[in-house]
Amino acid sequence: MLGYMNNEALEKTKKSGYVTFFSRSRQKLWTKGEKSGHHLRVREIRVDCDYDAVLVQVDLHGLGCCHMGYKSCFFRKLTPSGVEVFLQREFDPSDVYGEDNPENQT
Amino acid sequence: MLGYMNNEALEKTKKSGYVTFFSRSRQKLWTKGEKSGHHLRVREIRVDCDYDAVLVQVDLHGLGCCHMGYKSCFFRKLTPSGVEVFLQREFDPSDVYGEDNPENQT
Repeated sequence: MLGYMNNEALEKTKKSGYVTFFSRSRQKLWTKGEKSGHHLRVREIRVDCDYDAVLVQVDLHGLGCCHMGYKSCFFRKLTPSGVEVFLQREFDPSDVYGEDNPENQT
Repeated sequence: MLGYMNNEALEKTKKSGYVTFFSRSRQKLWTKGEKSGHHLRVREIRVDCDYDAVLVQVDLHGLGCCHMGYKSCFFRKLTPSGVEVFLQREFDPSDVYGEDNPENQT
């Protein structure tokens, strides 16, 4: 998944060992899995050449990372004939998130 | 590497088979490797759940993807004692980019 971290989110990620982002729409920290229970346990944090992006290697603790029920948010690929789903669904989002606002599907 | 694509960049990437970004600072398309010769050949383009990010699987044609001389821009990791470089340098950036402005180190 791709998400935004500010310094505070990165510090919390490092300290807790679980991936935490900063929501720019809600202006608050959110830890992946706080609603779903599907956490991302940090294995390694890599930093890019201009220090404005991190690549976090993780172990998924839970059924799926994506709020739409897949292991990865990148569950579709582009093909010459259009967009194709190539992963299987691991869970039904309504079982996990109920009728929550999509912004709270963490 | 992490870069920004607009629709035009994505279309060019799909059509040409080589990764092309859109530079927001220069307001123009740029194809990775146009200066260095180190191109990224597309294998697969994956799209995320909310359709605002793509993950492009590539083969690197050339010595390194990073303008600082490494295979990946993510050549550093965070450790308890600080930042550690864990990849070896594949080329000397001055051999490839000369005295170019960093913005032209493509």
